[in-house]
Amino acid sequence: MDRTRAITELAKRRGFFFGADEAYGGVAGFYTFGPEGAALKRNVEAAWRDRFTVREGNDEIEAPTIAPEPVFEASGHLDGFDDMLVECGECGESHRADHLIEDATDIEEAESLPIPEVEELVAAHEIACPSCGAPLAGRSVEEFNLMFETSIGPGSGQPGYLRPETAQGIFVEFPRLKEYARNQLPFGVTQIGRAYRNEISPRKGIVRTREFTQAELEQFVDPDADEPPLDRVADVSLRLYPADEQEDPEGGYVERTVGEAVEEGIIESDWVAYYLGVAREWYERIGVDDDRFRFRQHLPGERAHYAADCWDAESEVSGAVSDDPTVGDWIEIAGFAYRGDYDLSKHAEHSDDDFTVFQQYDEPKTVERAVVEPDMSVLGPEFGGKAGNVADELRALAERDPSAFEADEVTVTVDGEDVTVDADVANFRIEEQTEAGEHVTPHIVEPSFGVDRTVYTLLAHGYDEDEVDDEERTYLSLAPEVAPTDVAVFPLVSDDALETLADDVVADLREAGLSVAHDDSGNIGRRYRRQDEVGTPLSVTVDHESIENDPTTVTVRDRDTTAQVRVPVADLATELQVVLQSGGSFDRLLESYERIDTDVTRS
Amino acid sequence: MDRTRAITELAKRRGFFFGADEAYGGVAGFYTFGPEGAALKRNVEAAWRDRFTVREGNDEIEAPTIAPEPVFEASGHLDGFDDMLVECGECGESHRADHLIEDATDIEEAESLPIPEVEELVAAHEIACPSCGAPLAGRSVEEFNLMFETSIGPGSGQPGYLRPETAQGIFVEFPRLKEYARNQLPFGVTQIGRAYRNEISPRKGIVRTREFTQAELEQFVDPDADEPPLDRVADVSLRLYPADEQEDPEGGYVERTVGEAVEEGIIESDWVAYYLGVAREWYERIGVDDDRFRFRQHLPGERAHYAADCWDAESEVSGAVSDDPTVGDWIEIAGFAYRGDYDLSKHAEHSDDDFTVFQQYDEPKTVERAVVEPDMSVLGPEFGGKAGNVADELRALAERDPSAFEADEVTVTVDGEDVTVDADVANFRIEEQTEAGEHVTPHIVEPSFGVDRTVYTLLAHGYDEDEVDDEERTYLSLAPEVAPTDVAVFPLVSDDALETLADDVVADLREAGLSVAHDDSGNIGRRYRRQDEVGTPLSVTVDHESIENDPTTVTVRDRDTTAQVRVPVADLATELQVVLQSGGSFDRLLESYERIDTDVTRS
Repeated sequence: MDRTRAITELAKRRGFFFGADEAYGGVAGFYTFGPEGAALKRNVEAAWRDRFTVREGNDEIEAPTIAPEPVFEASGHLDGFDDMLVECGECGESHRADHLIEDATDIEEAESLPIPEVEELVAAHEIACPSCGAPLAGRSVEEFNLMFETSIGPGSGQPGYLRPETAQGIFVEFPRLKEYARNQLPFGVTQIGRAYRNEISPRKGIVRTREFTQAELEQFVDPDADEPPLDRVADVSLRLYPADEQEDPEGGYVERTVGEAVEEGIIESDWVAYYLGVAREWYERIGVDDDRFRFRQHLPGERAHYAADCWDAESEVSGAVSDDPTVGDWIEIAGFAYRGDYDLSKHAEHSDDDFTVFQQYDEPKTVERAVVEPDMSVLGPEFGGKAGNVADELRALAERDPSAFEADEVTVTVDGEDVTVDADVANFRIEEQTEAGEHVTPHIVEPSFGVDRTVYTLLAHGYDEDEVDDEERTYLSLAPEVAPTDVAVFPLVSDDALETLADDVVADLREAGLSVAHDDSGNIGRRYRRQDEVGTPLSVTVDHESIENDPTTVTVRDRDTTAQVRVPVADLATELQVVLQSGGSFDRLLESYERIDTDVTRS
Repeated sequence: MDRTRAITELAKRRGFFFGADEAYGGVAGFYTFGPEGAALKRNVEAAWRDRFTVREGNDEIEAPTIAPEPVFEASGHLDGFDDMLVECGECGESHRADHLIEDATDIEEAESLPIPEVEELVAAHEIACPSCGAPLAGRSVEEFNLMFETSIGPGSGQPGYLRPETAQGIFVEFPRLKEYARNQLPFGVTQIGRAYRNEISPRKGIVRTREFTQAELEQFVDPDADEPPLDRVADVSLRLYPADEQEDPEGGYVERTVGEAVEEGIIESDWVAYYLGVAREWYERIGVDDDRFRFRQHLPGERAHYAADCWDAESEVSGAVSDDPTVGDWIEIAGFAYRGDYDLSKHAEHSDDDFTVFQQYDEPKTVERAVVEPDMSVLGPEFGGKAGNVADELRALAERDPSAFEADEVTVTVDGEDVTVDADVANFRIEEQTEAGEHVTPHIVEPSFGVDRTVYTLLAHGYDEDEVDDEERTYLSLAPEVAPTDVAVFPLVSDDALETLADDVVADLREAGLSVAHDDSGNIGRRYRRQDEVGTPLSVTVDHESIENDPTTVTVRDRDTTAQVRVPVADLATELQVVLQSGGSFDRLLESYERIDTDVTRS
């Protein structure tokens, strides 16, 4: 069976995720996370929060998912957040024209092509409707806005949109958030929550959905003053796939430490480099496979015009491990962008609020400033009602080009007409002014993570098959930090004494803060398989020997190796905590306790 | 200042919550939780999850917030989820007619009144538009559906709605969820997430918003077999406000334990009673004030027709403490409903999926079943194309009324026509059949919590003012489990040695799992006030004595009493954990350590 299908079937069978509302036929692009998937997702979110909010000293907020139109006018989503739609004239199905082109040609980022070219490519390659096979040549390709629209309030209401990213909820509240940060840069604000994109043709299961969860960090910095603590991650090794290597047919990966990549200019922004290092360590911590992970730089055509440098974290999800970057099925799981002052400037432009931070100088600065004080007793009689405008233009010119006042006459444009006045009338002079600081529009560095895709990556990288006792076994090798359950506890057989002890063990382990599953249905082999398939790192079995032994013991089984040891109940909670905190290594237990060679499945 | 306004201003000033998108004028009914509010809300959710999911052994899922129309056709929201809208003919503003009536009269649940009566009341009480003062008499009152509508997919798409409650995402997936529960009742499924109601006129800050967070538990039970573990909460004392007391002008509270309330029949459903007990303890744990909390039974008119028994948890948010239930400003913070088989039956009716659970009998049962085997060689020639329908009707009649076959002739109705056949032709007999079990449509018990209103209640109940050192102080007496921050650490003054020690203390406390704020800006008094206002239970100050002492010590200050003690740094993490885990009691520290009488704010 194909690996993607195997993972999707496991996800459905065991309650990780499945198509939502299937009782009513379902709707493409909407998924429900079942008990195991919701737990895995929560754990990923908690690990992200720990690393990107708590340890970085950032603040987390929760904004609404619906926002009114002006927010998205300012952000540019109302005009620019479109996909290319082509509708089949025969069956009426809609498709993404850029995806059809990517499937039919060698072109990789077709969404960056202009529409007429896309229409030509559809015709030139005789692309047919994937649903009914009718030719699409000649059909018009149109921009389709990806935001879900709704109406707020009664009657015709006012238009509102479901946010296409959590970020705007942070940008738009910047005037207040800066106060909570006591007006001191740099500071970071995070948000974890739902975002929505009305995809034309959702595909690839939870990889491209219409409703998904993002974890975003907006780092606000003074571009002239703030530096990231680069030394903390300088030695972290990165597998980079820079733009020039992508454009070179022979191009390949570049392995560099964060420090080297900055020094060699491979990564332009220190802040982006810092977060690539932080992210690299974080992905390792939650169980992303080194060999199926890379940072790919955006090609010049992919990048938003305001973004100085962009890198995506990508994971390979088909199982392919290769040094050739063109091999494998790679999905974007996070983006790291240096967005400059674009976002805050746009909101400042569209609203009346103050999106700057007043940065106090260490010492007040004396600056020379060009000043004019137009003589209104001359301008008034000469220009009448326009005199005020003439004076304003003179002031503007003084700021823009002080040298203009060196001549005898000065010319400014008022209402489209050139107006010339004596330089003397302007009363031009250079004044020394003392300034305590300046208003800075912070720049934004944005690490943005897709939570669902991270979850999918963990399933894809954790998925494994082997043979145990001559039987095929499927298991998920999840890191203990994210596994839905820490420990499963089984009474070996239905027996009052064993069940009582099992209940006590469960209570003890829960008391110690572990997440515990208690399963007493089916034979023991089936119970092990069930836990293997949901990635539970450790299983504890209470058997007859448990109660015969003094001290009382239980068996502990390692998910990945299926090795088993016998551990006294009194030590159990502590020992299991150590195993889980060390990332699941069973070595310590194998060294300290009696190993059991016979699989208890056979007893 | 009025208490509600004081809380709202504190919420804004300190970053608990504020109106969203205010840079663009904002939209009524949408709020953003700032850093402190988001942390408080997360902690409430975690405490709920611990109690209602983990400890109850339930499963948590995450469904999409958008669902297609058929889901809400089945649930009844498409037709019945309306509010009464009256639009002012003068200024065009829309209002909730039932709220206007409640404000102008003594009527309490005006939303249960029929529309013509509401229109009459508007006229009879000469109710005017609250916005412009124009009379509303004669304006028509209309049903306004509260769901936010959107369109899924390109083109005209298909209609979708933002869920008005998280519950439907659980109900609709029941056919799969029962498999994860291995088809064994009872089991419970929970969900915490956003829900949406397009309120006509949102009011009261975060108490009535258009986007909010629910925490819902759907407990699926076999009505004939499953009993809740009532003994666990039998002794929990409840302040009840039953329907008959509400209808009695002299009526008052009834104080009963859960056990007594069930025995006396005050609470009809054992399951509802169980969850009232669990909820009562949980509210106490997170800091809801006993004296401003009650369970109010729904009046017969308030209750959905299918709901056998409903109780709301209500909190008083204006500060009023009274034995008179009509005194105070009470808000609903949770609902507890016995919903019968309504939800699953509706989805079974509207979809083709199986919303039952096969309940195996302990022993197979032998049952008598009426059977007919119509002789088609007779029916065929006689009824032609209708013969099959005649046979079906005979089978249905045998199930419905076996005695009909005791006569010589049997009459059934086919396509509106009476058809009579010889009883012999039906081949009627009673057969004994062995049945292993039966298909049961589970009943649902639903505890449903409003997270935002719970957060608001904690602010309202925690808000306090007193005088410290002759200065007025505002503080939030939040329970440590939900407080945004556990401990704040301050270096007393700007000094390298103090700052280094403070950094070490912060690192130690974080290592011990505490959530720590580090604040070194402003004078120490101001820093204490800031932490008091965000409800941080403990503050640690590093002063000169800290480094002069051997062993090194710091001062620890109690938020509520402002009492201070001096504690060795080596014991700090452990001691603070004990205080926090005991709900914030400072007594132990006062007994064990040197008390400081001088407020360090003065040093």
